[in-house]
Amino acid sequence: MTDPFFQPVSGMDLPRFAGVPTFMRLPYLPEDDARRVAVDIGLVGVPWDGGTTNRPGPRHGPRQLRDASTMIRAQNGITMVRPFEVANCADLGDVGPNPVDLMDSMERITTFYKRLVAQGIRPLTAGGDHLTSLPVLRALAAERPLGMVHFDSHTDLWDGYFGGHKYTHGTPFRRAVEEGLLDPKRVVQIGIRGTMYDLEDRDFAKAVGIRIIPIEELMARGVADVMAEAREIVGDRPTYVSYDIDFVDPTFAPGTGTPEVGGPNSFDALWVVRELAGVNIAGADMVEVSPPFDASGNTAFLGVSVMFELLCVMV
Amino acid sequence: MTDPFFQPVSGMDLPRFAGVPTFMRLPYLPEDDARRVAVDIGLVGVPWDGGTTNRPGPRHGPRQLRDASTMIRAQNGITMVRPFEVANCADLGDVGPNPVDLMDSMERITTFYKRLVAQGIRPLTAGGDHLTSLPVLRALAAERPLGMVHFDSHTDLWDGYFGGHKYTHGTPFRRAVEEGLLDPKRVVQIGIRGTMYDLEDRDFAKAVGIRIIPIEELMARGVADVMAEAREIVGDRPTYVSYDIDFVDPTFAPGTGTPEVGGPNSFDALWVVRELAGVNIAGADMVEVSPPFDASGNTAFLGVSVMFELLCVMV
Amino acid sequence: MTDPFFQPVSGMDLPRFAGVPTFMRLPYLPEDDARRVAVDIGLVGVPWDGGTTNRPGPRHGPRQLRDASTMIRAQNGITMVRPFEVANCADLGDVGPNPVDLMDSMERITTFYKRLVAQGIRPLTAGGDHLTSLPVLRALAAERPLGMVHFDSHTDLWDGYFGGHKYTHGTPFRRAVEEGLLDPKRVVQIGIRGTMYDLEDRDFAKAVGIRIIPIEELMARGVADVMAEAREIVGDRPTYVSYDIDFVDPTFAPGTGTPEVGGPNSFDALWVVRELAGVNIAGADMVEVSPPFDASGNTAFLGVSVMFELLCVMV
Amino acid sequence: MTDPFFQPVSGMDLPRFAGVPTFMRLPYLPEDDARRVAVDIGLVGVPWDGGTTNRPGPRHGPRQLRDASTMIRAQNGITMVRPFEVANCADLGDVGPNPVDLMDSMERITTFYKRLVAQGIRPLTAGGDHLTSLPVLRALAAERPLGMVHFDSHTDLWDGYFGGHKYTHGTPFRRAVEEGLLDPKRVVQIGIRGTMYDLEDRDFAKAVGIRIIPIEELMARGVADVMAEAREIVGDRPTYVSYDIDFVDPTFAPGTGTPEVGGPNSFDALWVVRELAGVNIAGADMVEVSPPFDASGNTAFLGVSVMFELLCVMV
Amino acid sequence: MTDPFFQPVSGMDLPRFAGVPTFMRLPYLPEDDARRVAVDIGLVGVPWDGGTTNRPGPRHGPRQLRDASTMIRAQNGITMVRPFEVANCADLGDVGPNPVDLMDSMERITTFYKRLVAQGIRPLTAGGDHLTSLPVLRALAAERPLGMVHFDSHTDLWDGYFGGHKYTHGTPFRRAVEEGLLDPKRVVQIGIRGTMYDLEDRDFAKAVGIRIIPIEELMARGVADVMAEAREIVGDRPTYVSYDIDFVDPTFAPGTGTPEVGGPNSFDALWVVRELAGVNIAGADMVEVSPPFDASGNTAFLGVSVMFELLCVMV
Amino acid sequence: MTDPFFQPVSGMDLPRFAGVPTFMRLPYLPEDDARRVAVDIGLVGVPWDGGTTNRPGPRHGPRQLRDASTMIRAQNGITMVRPFEVANCADLGDVGPNPVDLMDSMERITTFYKRLVAQGIRPLTAGGDHLTSLPVLRALAAERPLGMVHFDSHTDLWDGYFGGHKYTHGTPFRRAVEEGLLDPKRVVQIGIRGTMYDLEDRDFAKAVGIRIIPIEELMARGVADVMAEAREIVGDRPTYVSYDIDFVDPTFAPGTGTPEVGGPNSFDALWVVRELAGVNIAGADMVEVSPPFDASGNTAFLGVSVMFELLCVMV
Repeated sequence: MTDPFFQPVSGMDLPRFAGVPTFMRLPYLPEDDARRVAVDIGLVGVPWDGGTTNRPGPRHGPRQLRDASTMIRAQNGITMVRPFEVANCADLGDVGPNPVDLMDSMERITTFYKRLVAQGIRPLTAGGDHLTSLPVLRALAAERPLGMVHFDSHTDLWDGYFGGHKYTHGTPFRRAVEEGLLDPKRVVQIGIRGTMYDLEDRDFAKAVGIRIIPIEELMARGVADVMAEAREIVGDRPTYVSYDIDFVDPTFAPGTGTPEVGGPNSFDALWVVRELAGVNIAGADMVEVSPPFDASGNTAFLGVSVMFELLCVMV
Repeated sequence: MTDPFFQPVSGMDLPRFAGVPTFMRLPYLPEDDARRVAVDIGLVGVPWDGGTTNRPGPRHGPRQLRDASTMIRAQNGITMVRPFEVANCADLGDVGPNPVDLMDSMERITTFYKRLVAQGIRPLTAGGDHLTSLPVLRALAAERPLGMVHFDSHTDLWDGYFGGHKYTHGTPFRRAVEEGLLDPKRVVQIGIRGTMYDLEDRDFAKAVGIRIIPIEELMARGVADVMAEAREIVGDRPTYVSYDIDFVDPTFAPGTGTPEVGGPNSFDALWVVRELAGVNIAGADMVEVSPPFDASGNTAFLGVSVMFELLCVMV
Repeated sequence: MTDPFFQPVSGMDLPRFAGVPTFMRLPYLPEDDARRVAVDIGLVGVPWDGGTTNRPGPRHGPRQLRDASTMIRAQNGITMVRPFEVANCADLGDVGPNPVDLMDSMERITTFYKRLVAQGIRPLTAGGDHLTSLPVLRALAAERPLGMVHFDSHTDLWDGYFGGHKYTHGTPFRRAVEEGLLDPKRVVQIGIRGTMYDLEDRDFAKAVGIRIIPIEELMARGVADVMAEAREIVGDRPTYVSYDIDFVDPTFAPGTGTPEVGGPNSFDALWVVRELAGVNIAGADMVEVSPPFDASGNTAFLGVSVMFELLCVMV
Repeated sequence: MTDPFFQPVSGMDLPRFAGVPTFMRLPYLPEDDARRVAVDIGLVGVPWDGGTTNRPGPRHGPRQLRDASTMIRAQNGITMVRPFEVANCADLGDVGPNPVDLMDSMERITTFYKRLVAQGIRPLTAGGDHLTSLPVLRALAAERPLGMVHFDSHTDLWDGYFGGHKYTHGTPFRRAVEEGLLDPKRVVQIGIRGTMYDLEDRDFAKAVGIRIIPIEELMARGVADVMAEAREIVGDRPTYVSYDIDFVDPTFAPGTGTPEVGGPNSFDALWVVRELAGVNIAGADMVEVSPPFDASGNTAFLGVSVMFELLCVMV
Repeated sequence: MTDPFFQPVSGMDLPRFAGVPTFMRLPYLPEDDARRVAVDIGLVGVPWDGGTTNRPGPRHGPRQLRDASTMIRAQNGITMVRPFEVANCADLGDVGPNPVDLMDSMERITTFYKRLVAQGIRPLTAGGDHLTSLPVLRALAAERPLGMVHFDSHTDLWDGYFGGHKYTHGTPFRRAVEEGLLDPKRVVQIGIRGTMYDLEDRDFAKAVGIRIIPIEELMARGVADVMAEAREIVGDRPTYVSYDIDFVDPTFAPGTGTPEVGGPNSFDALWVVRELAGVNIAGADMVEVSPPFDASGNTAFLGVSVMFELLCVMV
Repeated sequence: MTDPFFQPVSGMDLPRFAGVPTFMRLPYLPEDDARRVAVDIGLVGVPWDGGTTNRPGPRHGPRQLRDASTMIRAQNGITMVRPFEVANCADLGDVGPNPVDLMDSMERITTFYKRLVAQGIRPLTAGGDHLTSLPVLRALAAERPLGMVHFDSHTDLWDGYFGGHKYTHGTPFRRAVEEGLLDPKRVVQIGIRGTMYDLEDRDFAKAVGIRIIPIEELMARGVADVMAEAREIVGDRPTYVSYDIDFVDPTFAPGTGTPEVGGPNSFDALWVVRELAGVNIAGADMVEVSPPFDASGNTAFLGVSVMFELLCVMV
């Protein structure tokens, strides 16, 4: 059993709709809190959508994810894992981005995460658009490239946008490979689909050795088979898990900016994460949750349910 | 052919958006109506959410279910059953609960249903939160314990809540077993999932012999196989069917108070009921439909579609 | 490569949320535009719901479909088809219906489409309710009856409505068969489900030789098998494809007037169209998209995604 | 005190969210009910929008108005009138319109209301689009022309539409004047505003002597002054009151098809009706409530609040 | 200037959409925090709707109010008051109610507030339904009866409900007068309107000397005049301010359970509070904000704007 | 009468819900269209929210404004102006901004507008966030500073944000004064309200001579009196009109990013513009309309109604 301080508030003590909402009702430890040294896994919000080229909104993601996360209880109903008893988890608050300066925001994010790395805290991030992953990886992969399991409907491997701009939510992993933050041979992208401009991203993937498993292959082979391959690709070295909520079919997750129809349902959305058990996870994120397009709040609830599954395989 | 009085109004005579909305456009028979003696199956609303510990709203369920039910026509498109020609069905109105007194409400419900039992009417109930099932069972199972097929994402077998309160929508079937209203050996719970506080409910189920089929088992085995087992468990003695709309994935049924992601789709939501053909059904309910969280009304429409399937296997 | 004039505006040049929204960001050619002669496939809106007997709204369909269609890019991510490089496509605007005169509207529609036929343009229509298909077929099948692949939850083969009115969105294909616009032996209807008034439509289908594949058969056999049969039924002669958005489960496509729960998901909704590759398609439509019931706009986005798949098998 | 049978169900006996929703929780008397002879004022629904040239939806108005009307209690909080104790009121159900035949629908409506006239029942109608008023007036004004107080943002005095069609929701009162159903000298239209095609309607009004009080005059003079003039115009002979919900600013009443911004607030929306005390009201209607555009249901609640005020000045 | 610890986080340092949401971005001090001794005014949530007889939801009020309150800045734009520099303010968290036991909940609330009284903290409460005010008054008025300025559309002076139940959101001030918590001669109720069951509440008001200012009087006399009278009624002795959000017109504040149309607009909603400057305020509440009926969140934003005005007149 | 080519499509010829939506159904003239030389007033969209520090969304404004604008007819119902007969008006499309580069976007905007100035076209802009006004003014005021009538709840006169960033939607007019684009003595800001960080903006206004009319002054003096002063301030030299939709109360215009409660209603929102008759308007804009927060679309409809009033005083 971990430190009782790090246990979430139970709905048996305080109804789940009550109280100031922290991630999964965990204690909130601001940056200067001494108790951070005891933290194993830190839940962090990055309320930012500076890289968004289409419908904005992920800057509001962390708040809504926190709110929805108060519905999460202590134990995984399928794997029976009780993560909060295995690792000290805490809400470490939000990185404060600069809404009108993309480059400044990326620096702030990297700085925040470098401190976590220094404190030995593994981060579980609530984005933010997908560009968020790049400054996070700059902190986490500073020492050596990571492998990555990437759930998404897009590869986010584009080179540029709109006359060559290099930093958008469509380019983070191209940059990460170029900067040596990811080992492309240990990267697998699952669920890719939707209409495309051209094949530039897929050509890049082929050239560097990234494995793309498009949606029709996932549907044909099934979750268990595909995830076995994914585990093999990343092996047992440190691996990042990046989960774009638009991996899931937009009917299950409408609250996102660039949806693509014809994706996995919510059962598979959770199952793929459970199949990561055993992977050496250095950090993970849940990105592109966009509350303005999520009238019912169901996207955020699915998002935190995925985050809880991520937590259960990280501990 | 049954009494023409008991036929629903056809959309060919009055458009489906017209008219005072009764359940499935059946005649409405208030409590003192003499024609109640001819009724075989009574559709009853219980607009109540006194047992709700999380997001409220099921008190508004019956009205919205009545409204959506005017979209239901006369014949099942798959089994071809025409229920209104096989049994006299009627809308028997709502039990009037006391919104500020839980115990008083339970008594009012039991009293209402005892009268139905005395009149030989089998009830198909539109809740109401899941605590509704307890006072209903007190009327229906007064003579002998019933078996039960229970579709839900939660077991509702908890002992207490919030310092020991015994009557909430998380406890009805624990109470029903304790009160001898259900024969636990003839109870099967299907679709159970979601995060949990602990294993108290599952331990109780094991101890008394209730069979729990969690979601991952339902997904792996499929509807036909699981329902064959369910039919075997309840056998041919009288059985209650309790259908919590949160059995279905919240994307298909967002209008409910305690959703759990990763559930069955709407096709399976209907199919499980069709597989009850042949079961000796003493009564059934559709609970936890919560209109304030159902902006589109689709949850209610799915709810009444399930109710129509229930009717088709009850007749 | 086709005429560069007919290429859609790229999101790399103008963000997808910018600009006057035409279908798929194609050039808009009004009726008197000389460049129409170069058009192979014309995208046409029919903003009309004069035949709707239940919840109205499809008159707003074309505008919302145009808006959502600006999310479509140049290439199919699965079949890799780039339709705009294979055929000259253009937005030909809307037929102007008469909202208060059903018969007048039908004539206007037929007149509009006869001109397209004369110009050698194959139409891809955005409805409109399902009665739209009848006046379109009157133009397209003037010379000889067509075969038809029809995706829907309803057969739309009823004889009349409300005391014998012959033209509603429940009757177009009965009329089309009677008028010799469809060859019933080459008609297949897929996805049929929901409660029914009676068997009149199915009896008619049997009598004339229309093949109905109800939802439970589609679910049991799967898309590939069912579509192989569909291709065989229509053969290689000219065929119309009519796609009612209520073919799809209403959770995926809530924005429609007469939903029926328990239908296909969005992956299958697209897949069935891809399986039409090789069919000789004389024209196609996407009907019954009803924006007032589509708060999130997801129905329209699914609708245009289906239209893009249709385009990819038409070129 | 009137017949206790005609008292609405009290929220003290049955919570207002419970029960089958009739207008103001009054008894429902179908067409063949013998107790109709005792009725003074009949509340009738006309679920019809056949005359709508823009956004459809009023066919769903009566159902939503009934639902919202269960929030209405027994006594006017300002005038202290208790209408149900002064006159026998009842819900007389809906006229069944023909959704696909405008002329047939108008005949059905007139027939229904002629029967009411014959029974000595004064009608309070819940529409329906504004064309509804014409067939109602054909029944009510069969003997002699009526005066009219008309609240609206449009005059509905247009001659035709779309190439001369004579029956739309923009033409009812032109027709009514032409048919001798209204005495134009005793007609006043209040709240007129919005952009216009041209001055055709205003020219007609001038020519026949209809008094138009546009919004800027209402705002400048105030409710009391304007309504004093209105009372003078209609005098003490029988008068019809027609209330289009788009009279009210669309922020207060978004659920309507042709809104015009810059209208009265809800306090004035009720006040104008209270100022009709003493007018000899032969019948009244509340039209153009369109639920598909009324996500919150507030338009319907305002609509029934106006209907209650109408009832209080009718008794 | 107050203790810098008690200053809210500025939007210049952390964007307003970022961070864990506390009331007005103030520091959160749980019950055992030593810094509570320095607090002058405590913002407290009471997430409870146990007394609600109609549409439920206020249990979700405090969370949504906290969220919306992050939009509030440091200075009042009209009175120029900077409350956080005049008094130490803090978020003291939520009272944990018992969702299934009304009497238990009331005791928990009173206990919580008695502790505040003991610590010399004046409370500004975010409800919760209106029954909340009763247990709060039991703590605040334990020593002597308070005067009260009460903004509402209902008097909440009813004796009982549903067969005599004494504790609902319609009865708190009847009980408070009976229990000697309020001095009825120093109570004024402003904005009363809507339909009524009967005159029981108004008769009680008359009998004990409560002054009711109904909506038509407020509209006729204007805010300044009415509030001058209100200030005179309560005089300079300690006074409670209770603000039911349904005082405001439901168009401006749809998120509430028992709306009454025809109320004040948002400018007057704020102005009435500014006119309380100089009143000796012992505590205040904002109640009946119901997020499930507040799709846009505007009700909560208006609610916290009123709370900020309350704070400015409390300091 | 102007060139018939520049007349909007009438709803009598094509229903208003039909057709590709251009601003007010005017002809669309892309940048290279030769007919631009005949244009007097150009309606331009700037789909951009790069300067937004709070809730994003105005990048979607122009599309939604175009859609809503199809409800606008040819004649002003109060002033009787028929703008399209007085001046040649056209939809000139959207400036294509760069969603991920603020400075690049500003340059693109200025370039676009400089071309209009060169062609003698006066622009009526549909934003975009309020930073839009700055690059527009750089084109329009290149020759000499302009006066400005500015409707808003914020002054947008801040110096910097978030550590000194100079270009946000809170700083455009500070920059415009500094750059000599506005003559501060001829600038009036109307409707200012809401909570504030501090007095920096108001101090700047005082220092340079900008006249601020806060909301309480507008409410006390009334529209006519305040606007007379505004006309006097700007005199008869060229003047820009900038209309931030958050000038209006957020109940009337919820679709905006930084609402402030307690503002003018929709009648006054239009009236203030009518009072600009006679002012020498060099250009005007409607900014901060944010569709993701405008579920009903009413904000956009109010926005285009204001734009139509602007057009009527510009011609």
